[in-house]
Amino acid sequence: MKALLLVAHGSRREESNEEIKQLTSRVAAHSANNADFTTCAFLELSEPSIGAGIQHCIDQGATQIEVFPYFLSKGRHVAEDVPELVQEKQLSCPQVDIRISNYFGAHDSVVELLAREAFTALDK
Amino acid sequence: MKALLLVAHGSRREESNEEIKQLTSRVAAHSANNADFTTCAFLELSEPSIGAGIQHCIDQGATQIEVFPYFLSKGRHVAEDVPELVQEKQLSCPQVDIRISNYFGAHDSVVELLAREAFTALDK
Repeated sequence: MKALLLVAHGSRREESNEEIKQLTSRVAAHSANNADFTTCAFLELSEPSIGAGIQHCIDQGATQIEVFPYFLSKGRHVAEDVPELVQEKQLSCPQVDIRISNYFGAHDSVVELLAREAFTALDK
Repeated sequence: MKALLLVAHGSRREESNEEIKQLTSRVAAHSANNADFTTCAFLELSEPSIGAGIQHCIDQGATQIEVFPYFLSKGRHVAEDVPELVQEKQLSCPQVDIRISNYFGAHDSVVELLAREAFTALDK
């Protein structure tokens, strides 16, 4: 069973964390056929933590978990913090296949979309 | 003359700031007809600051500046910090029309793209 775990930074502003949870529901609704379970976790400032998010996927029966970092650039969070937390959890759950996707901003399609949205804003 | 100022968070990891600068070049190349000048600035941890980025646009002759927050959710940075810094600069440059776009993650197309990229990763 496959699970998708979106990982966002987390915020002191609760509306922002709620925004990520709603986004996760929308992503889950978008392509329910690809993942059996989709949920989210936060690097810091909110719950669930990355370890707790992975555990939640396992509790739902996941045997393969794709951790998708919802970040725009490869700062220390993407380069170090997320991999370290995932690795830590992987060590305690060797029976589960946990992978980390490339972060969101790394995809070429994000640049194209940014160009489109930015220049649309400029034309208003 | 119109300028587009992409505002990113900024990182202690210099490769991450460089990534944003390269992204800005790619955005500029994408639709050069909509903005006469495109550049970037950082909220913190890197240079130029938002005020310096706006000033750079003005120095290039900009009379209208669109500040585009390259953030994924509306945390305190988007809700408070960026608007405060832009407002501060606007007060000292009343002759220039400075606007703030909705942040990147607010666009519906971002959710669709996220769903696509996340589930592509899951299928690998």
